[in-house]
Amino acid sequence: MASSLSPLKINMELHSKNRQNLLKSLRQHLSKSSLPLHGFVLLQGGEEQTRYDTDHEELFRQESYFAYLFGVKEPGFYGAIDVRSGDSILFAPRLPDEYAIWMGKIKPVSHFKEHYKVTTAYFTDEIVTVLQQNYQGSGKPLLFLLHGLNTDSNNYAKPAEFQGIEKFDKDLTTLHPILTECRVIKSDLEIELMQYANDISSEAHIEVMRKAKAGMKEYQLESIFLHHTYMYGGCRHCSYTCICATGDNSAVLHYGHTAAPNDKTLEDGDMALLDMGAEYHFYGSDITCSYPINGKFTSDQSLIYNAVLDAHDAVISSMKPGVSWVDMHILSHKVILESLKKGHILLGNVDDTMVERLGHVFMPHGLGHFLGLDTHDPGGYPEGLERRKEPGLKALRAARGLQEGMVITVEPGCYFIEALLIPAMNNPETSKFFNKEVINRFTGFGGVRIESDLLVTATGCYNMTKCPRKIQEIEAVMAGAPWPVKKTSTTVENGLESKA
Amino acid sequence: MASSLSPLKINMELHSKNRQNLLKSLRQHLSKSSLPLHGFVLLQGGEEQTRYDTDHEELFRQESYFAYLFGVKEPGFYGAIDVRSGDSILFAPRLPDEYAIWMGKIKPVSHFKEHYKVTTAYFTDEIVTVLQQNYQGSGKPLLFLLHGLNTDSNNYAKPAEFQGIEKFDKDLTTLHPILTECRVIKSDLEIELMQYANDISSEAHIEVMRKAKAGMKEYQLESIFLHHTYMYGGCRHCSYTCICATGDNSAVLHYGHTAAPNDKTLEDGDMALLDMGAEYHFYGSDITCSYPINGKFTSDQSLIYNAVLDAHDAVISSMKPGVSWVDMHILSHKVILESLKKGHILLGNVDDTMVERLGHVFMPHGLGHFLGLDTHDPGGYPEGLERRKEPGLKALRAARGLQEGMVITVEPGCYFIEALLIPAMNNPETSKFFNKEVINRFTGFGGVRIESDLLVTATGCYNMTKCPRKIQEIEAVMAGAPWPVKKTSTTVENGLESKA
Repeated sequence: MASSLSPLKINMELHSKNRQNLLKSLRQHLSKSSLPLHGFVLLQGGEEQTRYDTDHEELFRQESYFAYLFGVKEPGFYGAIDVRSGDSILFAPRLPDEYAIWMGKIKPVSHFKEHYKVTTAYFTDEIVTVLQQNYQGSGKPLLFLLHGLNTDSNNYAKPAEFQGIEKFDKDLTTLHPILTECRVIKSDLEIELMQYANDISSEAHIEVMRKAKAGMKEYQLESIFLHHTYMYGGCRHCSYTCICATGDNSAVLHYGHTAAPNDKTLEDGDMALLDMGAEYHFYGSDITCSYPINGKFTSDQSLIYNAVLDAHDAVISSMKPGVSWVDMHILSHKVILESLKKGHILLGNVDDTMVERLGHVFMPHGLGHFLGLDTHDPGGYPEGLERRKEPGLKALRAARGLQEGMVITVEPGCYFIEALLIPAMNNPETSKFFNKEVINRFTGFGGVRIESDLLVTATGCYNMTKCPRKIQEIEAVMAGAPWPVKKTSTTVENGLESKA
Repeated sequence: MASSLSPLKINMELHSKNRQNLLKSLRQHLSKSSLPLHGFVLLQGGEEQTRYDTDHEELFRQESYFAYLFGVKEPGFYGAIDVRSGDSILFAPRLPDEYAIWMGKIKPVSHFKEHYKVTTAYFTDEIVTVLQQNYQGSGKPLLFLLHGLNTDSNNYAKPAEFQGIEKFDKDLTTLHPILTECRVIKSDLEIELMQYANDISSEAHIEVMRKAKAGMKEYQLESIFLHHTYMYGGCRHCSYTCICATGDNSAVLHYGHTAAPNDKTLEDGDMALLDMGAEYHFYGSDITCSYPINGKFTSDQSLIYNAVLDAHDAVISSMKPGVSWVDMHILSHKVILESLKKGHILLGNVDDTMVERLGHVFMPHGLGHFLGLDTHDPGGYPEGLERRKEPGLKALRAARGLQEGMVITVEPGCYFIEALLIPAMNNPETSKFFNKEVINRFTGFGGVRIESDLLVTATGCYNMTKCPRKIQEIEAVMAGAPWPVKKTSTTVENGLESKA
């Protein structure tokens, strides 16, 4: 069989539990602030978008906060939670008759009530009436609306809007930090989905690893990945645009977008850096594998690869609740700089290179970020926690202490980026640390990134990503060995294990 | 080999010719109106979009009018054409230094000048200066901006905006109809691209046809199509979201979107209606194949299929310059109604059913639409041509006489849609035409659509779509016969031709 997996059954209890989580936190907050326990959390789901002035409809993907609380895949919904009773209410768009001809059966609101396991469901044009009827306080009912900063994009969440909203009081500050914090700590059901997204994506990475060879185009690796995760995994969306970078392109951190569209031909001797992750029922994965296209690491490739792998492993060994993510980032820099020194790429004292922040020259991105409904899941900088200003630290998407239930990517990298190397090599303060002759050997090398998705547990962490990581594992899998390595070989055909 | 095709080399001359086309038409118009031949056509390209408040970047696709004139794939550009000299000027965004680290090499503007074959290239912050310097008239230079109605979406094209635009005079009415008309008539180079998109999509349809079987999910057919067109054809985008409808879903005209996401299991006895087309360098294809999942047509399936195929073929036989598209639409209704009468689904006189517009009950969409840079390419209703109000005709996306160089889809269909059938069967005026017993046999049948892309030639038309259409062809290909049928068989393995 082409895959050992099949699409996971979706359990809508997940969203019911997410709502319970929010209610608990919100009520605690209101009690602590001596505020009454009433009002409604109200979120507006996403709307379908057309392309420019045309009627070309983009494939709709639900807004993530709305997906967290309600799990609704369809566009045009609103959702409310009654803070007093805990009741959940969905508001579905009232569809015109032609919808049945063009778009599909018009489902009664009872369908959405049952399918999404909410207390009641109505039409969106009933929001005002329904919320007013459910309100048992005096004066205008209070709406807790979603408004707050996304610290990765610097954009603000757009609070719900609807006709008649002036009949309500609005609270625009309470909900966002509390709901964001709920998203930071994953429930067992969320972890199950993310593990599935990781499993199918890990498997697809291995499929790509086995098929990659010189002469192919980078986008063919993307196509193999997308096909595997959709065909066998039921994943229609990816968490992000696939980065299929080979050769020098692997030093471009976010390669793969339209202006750099995975269109290079793979060459013998190239390293590949493949950063690809599928999404399943809104929850994502984010995985990077790096390896030589021809299946055999050269000594230079091994040097850089192991520098990154050692950083990856050192961080994972150190992760547990209470550990600071900034410290983990610094640790990854230190391990990489030590390896570069051992490999004669850097000279002098490693502590001095740390003081000069040379880690940033070779790894200009943060060590990792929260992962969940968004690839860069929110919550990295809760109110009061400022982003660090230093060049080595300002790229970090999170700067908190780890807590049980967080899912965070560990993605150290080591890149030879002219735009960073040349200034550092010319800088009189740092010039002395670079062994120019050896570094010249790495012109056009690109870079290496190794990225896994880690769940923080009570005592440490768990790696949800199941890809070959050691050089000998990668070389074996690329040569046709089974993965995962099994103790007793069952069915082996032409050196390739057939997965039952 | 998995495909007989390889990605077509892109010839940027295409866009230079497109600009020449526009210049010619625009100068003619200005001369006829006794207006001076100066000023600048100025278009703003598309911008990258992020999802909601997050930093998730959607894969960018250029705006189609901009793509027509300049062929630029990157976001953030402006383009100008000097009406007097004919010079073309691209304005590229000035990228920040970090772009080189995160997104890729920062290309000099000379790169864009050469790659896109324009006269000169500058940065977007130089628009005002450059246009003023190039202007040789007196007073404020005149800008021809794009503003006009898309008759499929009812949205308006957004005219270019930039800082300093108040230093120019603006003409918002001249450009849109003239440029739209240019897009209606395809050049040889445009046709070459569309033929390629058709070829790879036709081949992918055949791949799907051969692999479809009961027990699979509809989305697996989508995944096979997407993979084939990307892996072997280099097509990263589709013209539209794939419609992979089986069983009753095939009566939902635009099935496949997020709320009806190709997630049914294929069952023995189901008809499949697969409407999928890849896009290559902005130019699209739009192809529908209908067939039984189990590879053998029943007599009822043959009846409906041949009704649609006869309409498809009758229209194609009649198409040539001067023929009215409304007449073609009516012809397709007539052929279908005749077949339904022959098949004892309808009773009475076919002309009477035409008068009662029963064609619309079975085929509620238009016969076809212009195709090009957009799936519903603009120009179906130029100024002065009003959309017809009658139920059978108002869905038509074009209502013009055919002209050489138009590319238009021919996509008759016949569907059993409860929301249309039941009212028509209950209507005292039309009830008598329906043979209710026979129609009951078609409950849950869904529908059939056959869609090809036709190029209008000097004397008739040319079918760019190369899929098996006759029942015996489809059954043979699904059973493993080679396609296209070749006179001398070359290499045959296990009954499947290996395409060299």
